[in-house]
Amino acid sequence: MSAPRFSDAFRAELHELFAWRRDVRAFRPDPLPQGALERLLATACLAPSVGLSQPWRFVLVDDPARRAAVRANFERANGEALAAEPGERQGLYARLKLAGLDDAPCHVAVFADPSTEQGHGLGRRTMPEALDYSAVLAIHTLWLAARAEGIGVGWVSILDPAPLAATLEVPATWHFVGYLCIGFARADHEVPTLETAGWECRRPPETFLIRR
Amino acid sequence: MSAPRFSDAFRAELHELFAWRRDVRAFRPDPLPQGALERLLATACLAPSVGLSQPWRFVLVDDPARRAAVRANFERANGEALAAEPGERQGLYARLKLAGLDDAPCHVAVFADPSTEQGHGLGRRTMPEALDYSAVLAIHTLWLAARAEGIGVGWVSILDPAPLAATLEVPATWHFVGYLCIGFARADHEVPTLETAGWECRRPPETFLIRR
Repeated sequence: MSAPRFSDAFRAELHELFAWRRDVRAFRPDPLPQGALERLLATACLAPSVGLSQPWRFVLVDDPARRAAVRANFERANGEALAAEPGERQGLYARLKLAGLDDAPCHVAVFADPSTEQGHGLGRRTMPEALDYSAVLAIHTLWLAARAEGIGVGWVSILDPAPLAATLEVPATWHFVGYLCIGFARADHEVPTLETAGWECRRPPETFLIRR
Repeated sequence: MSAPRFSDAFRAELHELFAWRRDVRAFRPDPLPQGALERLLATACLAPSVGLSQPWRFVLVDDPARRAAVRANFERANGEALAAEPGERQGLYARLKLAGLDDAPCHVAVFADPSTEQGHGLGRRTMPEALDYSAVLAIHTLWLAARAEGIGVGWVSILDPAPLAATLEVPATWHFVGYLCIGFARADHEVPTLETAGWECRRPPETFLIRR
């Protein structure tokens, strides 16, 4: 198979995909088409990984009792975050409705397995967190592939990792990377919810560039 | 502006992009077109970030003395990794020529700034590493946008972070995430170099799925 050459039209659409991706919080409850999630996860496995270690572990959470425990975990962690926020931001923070946990038809917890033999340790010596980064790359691959199908992904990071691992009965040595809510978005937005809500706004790219 | 709807043709090309992305090690020395790197970095800034914190910091490394110091850093860290590898893999490890540092026309060191006020701390409480993950998402966005233009990216993680920060005169508090070699690839491959070289092979997606 010969290498693909991408067209200007493809690049323009790819830019649209990046611009309209969004971290989705408001989902329609309709299920995804049969097999869609498995297909997206297969695409995620094409992501780069340090030493080709593929350290990502995807836990598809369907059991209602486990989902309830995850929700309680989120409420606890979110409550602590609220308590730690200075006064004037608390209300806004609460109104942002970070979870999406209640409506999204699919829940996927993503972990990295630091004990994997795959990859033979390559590239992890000076930077063991490269394993976690590989799982992040898989999440992002899934995220973009999903959005291209009109499927939204929301990344929940406000969870306490240790009880989460217990709830999901995964090895305590696995490192929690992110909990994904996946489903059809209620609406599409080009501007991030946090920006619309007045929480924060994006800065111009030059802000982040340094020349040496 | 109304939300884009992506076509089957776009999705098929996007899948090709994921499949042919590659971690590039062998670069042609030709420079990138004027402005291409800045454009790719601007696209990278569309990546998701925790609390819209945009914690990524891109250091464009052009100074020959600094590049030489980075190279020496890599050789030292790589040498230590070699010494730590069991016998039979050492030769292969050395032959993999991990760096690409010598040929790539563009070098970009990527850090995350954990002290940034942007994002007001949202989502970082239970998982402070979400800031690093945001920088990883920016790198991946750049990587895909680059590949869509026929530009290759290689991620070097075998570097000692502390001396790297000193070499680049960035705050010691910044967290090193990855060092990118960017340029036109000598060749395109669908199969990862590590697989071709017999280091490791990718496993089927079901390997990484668990149902709970």
